[in-house]
Amino acid sequence: VSLIPPRTLKGFRDLTPAQALARAEVVRTAEDVFRAHGYAPIDTPALEYAEILKGKGGADSDKELFEFEDRGGRQVALRFDLTVPLARYVAEHEGALVFPFRRHHAGPVWRGERPQRGRFREFWQCDADLVGATGEAADAEILVVMAAVYRALAVGGFTIRVNDRRILSGLLERAGAPDLAVPVLRALDKREKAGEAVVLAEMAAAGLSGDAAASLLRATEPGSGDDATLAGLARAVRGSAVGEGGVEALALVRKIALAGGVEPAEIRIDPTVARGLDYYTGVVFEVQLDGAKDLGSVGSGGRYDDLAGLYTKTRLPGVGGSVGVDRLLVAKEERAGGEPKAPPAEILVAHPGRDRLPEAFALLRALRALGRSAIAYPAEAKHDKQMRWADRMGVPFVVTLDPAGALHAKDLASGRTFTAADANGLLAALRG
Amino acid sequence: VSLIPPRTLKGFRDLTPAQALARAEVVRTAEDVFRAHGYAPIDTPALEYAEILKGKGGADSDKELFEFEDRGGRQVALRFDLTVPLARYVAEHEGALVFPFRRHHAGPVWRGERPQRGRFREFWQCDADLVGATGEAADAEILVVMAAVYRALAVGGFTIRVNDRRILSGLLERAGAPDLAVPVLRALDKREKAGEAVVLAEMAAAGLSGDAAASLLRATEPGSGDDATLAGLARAVRGSAVGEGGVEALALVRKIALAGGVEPAEIRIDPTVARGLDYYTGVVFEVQLDGAKDLGSVGSGGRYDDLAGLYTKTRLPGVGGSVGVDRLLVAKEERAGGEPKAPPAEILVAHPGRDRLPEAFALLRALRALGRSAIAYPAEAKHDKQMRWADRMGVPFVVTLDPAGALHAKDLASGRTFTAADANGLLAALRG
Repeated sequence: VSLIPPRTLKGFRDLTPAQALARAEVVRTAEDVFRAHGYAPIDTPALEYAEILKGKGGADSDKELFEFEDRGGRQVALRFDLTVPLARYVAEHEGALVFPFRRHHAGPVWRGERPQRGRFREFWQCDADLVGATGEAADAEILVVMAAVYRALAVGGFTIRVNDRRILSGLLERAGAPDLAVPVLRALDKREKAGEAVVLAEMAAAGLSGDAAASLLRATEPGSGDDATLAGLARAVRGSAVGEGGVEALALVRKIALAGGVEPAEIRIDPTVARGLDYYTGVVFEVQLDGAKDLGSVGSGGRYDDLAGLYTKTRLPGVGGSVGVDRLLVAKEERAGGEPKAPPAEILVAHPGRDRLPEAFALLRALRALGRSAIAYPAEAKHDKQMRWADRMGVPFVVTLDPAGALHAKDLASGRTFTAADANGLLAALRG
Repeated sequence: VSLIPPRTLKGFRDLTPAQALARAEVVRTAEDVFRAHGYAPIDTPALEYAEILKGKGGADSDKELFEFEDRGGRQVALRFDLTVPLARYVAEHEGALVFPFRRHHAGPVWRGERPQRGRFREFWQCDADLVGATGEAADAEILVVMAAVYRALAVGGFTIRVNDRRILSGLLERAGAPDLAVPVLRALDKREKAGEAVVLAEMAAAGLSGDAAASLLRATEPGSGDDATLAGLARAVRGSAVGEGGVEALALVRKIALAGGVEPAEIRIDPTVARGLDYYTGVVFEVQLDGAKDLGSVGSGGRYDDLAGLYTKTRLPGVGGSVGVDRLLVAKEERAGGEPKAPPAEILVAHPGRDRLPEAFALLRALRALGRSAIAYPAEAKHDKQMRWADRMGVPFVVTLDPAGALHAKDLASGRTFTAADANGLLAALRG
């Protein structure tokens, strides 16, 4: 019989135990913070009717769908994010839900992108959204929740760069170019990477006058602090009602978020943050790690006007945040200096053979009852083989049952050995 | 613009917050127990090459696959269980893995079955396997782990019904019908539901003599206790080497499992447990809840000889257990007397409007720092509306900021009201 080659699909990957543990830890941490702030989990199917998913994610999204006809002749597709399923969910269950509705959701999504380094066709998203609420309380709440997530993740200092799309609209209105939002914001977005000359050239190409472009660049320069930035923006949008409203709202959102527990160092008003031009309508934000800015955004979100307008006539505004699980894992690996190690237990109980197994298992039970993680070598094997296995797995201590029932323990790192009569004695000696 | 009807595919479902919380709790509990026993998580993609998945799950499995051609012309399919991906994983990463290899894995799987009450086309599996180990230590370890899972799940009393496929082989050998394993086991499996007359008739139809069938029925009757059952089985298989080996092994597995922490009431030797005829080769088990036997098995597993023989020439025997997540959720719902309630927080902070939001958020921060779950009504709304919302969401306490900064609290269940000056005073009053 010829073998079937064991392989994963192009753009897909397995997670090793260390990688899977690290991802589970990030997701659990975020979920715990979300729940502590009143966000409940939901789940939606991986597969949806294709018509639910199509035409929602911009130009490339449809081409990247894993779409097919099922055996019942239905056109179906794998979800490419968790936001479109949320929109379908709130529309489908509108009558049963109580709004404002706080939900979180973590799970895999699928996009048939051209595989690149660090980009996969299956990856995780981890979102929290507050649907059916407008105003500064909701916007500030999302910032409080996101800051609590990154603090709990213990990835070092982070900055939530916050803006409000209405400020950008006000600036464009003042520049006499309210219809140029898309090309101008796209140009502004390149400031950090490409430099101001490129931004000015792109704005000119879009049809903005040189004066207007220069004042836009000046107005969106971060100030020496949030109060200065806000004061500068207030001056720059004066006379534009939408712009003035945006500046006032952003100042209040910041004040509420600080009162609610966001530390001053964790938040920065940044008028260059644009994001999701067709989608976000109010506050927008990106999260950066202070020690890994080259990694780009490790989280983002913002306010939208109408989540589920394609599925229901009810207008459902909301605000949400998304935790960038994969980039956080890269950051955590870099901080740890390589792939994390995860030994299966602290203590290996080595045993001389099958007739001593009940004794070995009784010792395991006693060690576990004392709160220690302990495992047996799970087969009959020579003592040397059991020791080598412990060493390869990174288990730090090996305890061996001797013929008289005494316990011989060895610290594999230091080579230190000691003897004990029982589990309690062993733990006392381990601490020694 | 016409709306797209918001609906899930036939056989698929959304989980409400209460359902999603309940499932997450079951899965987390199992994962925590698995990890405490040295089992590390892995993850594998939802999509695999179709050739990896086909021909593995019995006659109906291929027909139930969600299979399609991707945009790269590859024939791909959604995984229908977590065992075939494990087999592919250990074969693909054989050189990098250290055996014996303990892994756990929880996640969704997909089968295009005809939808029935309580059966869905997407459902969760939650497995632990120990690969590359033979013998009683490994078999007993899986029983210890499974018992610890069900104990941690707090679903009441449970029984792990254990057997060894070799005992059944021995009994058939002694009955002179070693080749009739499949029809005879299928007949024996019906004993509880259909009665002995049906079993005898089916055995006769399969070609077993009346005497042999009767003695098989007698030999597989559970005894008055495990020792009696084992003694009866030892007599019945005497002269069959494989049968004698099976009885001896099962007795030792039981003894080790008891030493390792399985309570005597949690395990029962039951020679009628057959399971997975084509797959399992040694110990086999099923878990039943004592208070919900009609629910059937809420977990199962056993030993297999050759996990990954289709993908590698290396023989990888192992033993595994699977936690029946969906049935456990049904059992938990029944115990709780309906769908679980999950209020988003203990305390709602009601606020009079946007200029008092920083104060409201400072109170939330203080309550959270004191270890309480507290949320704000996340929008501007009349006080009555905020109270009604708390009531509908099941939030037990509402705290209202008054103009002078004092806190007015109300216990929505009892109607009791009280006043406090700050978060500490509030918590003291809540306890009162």
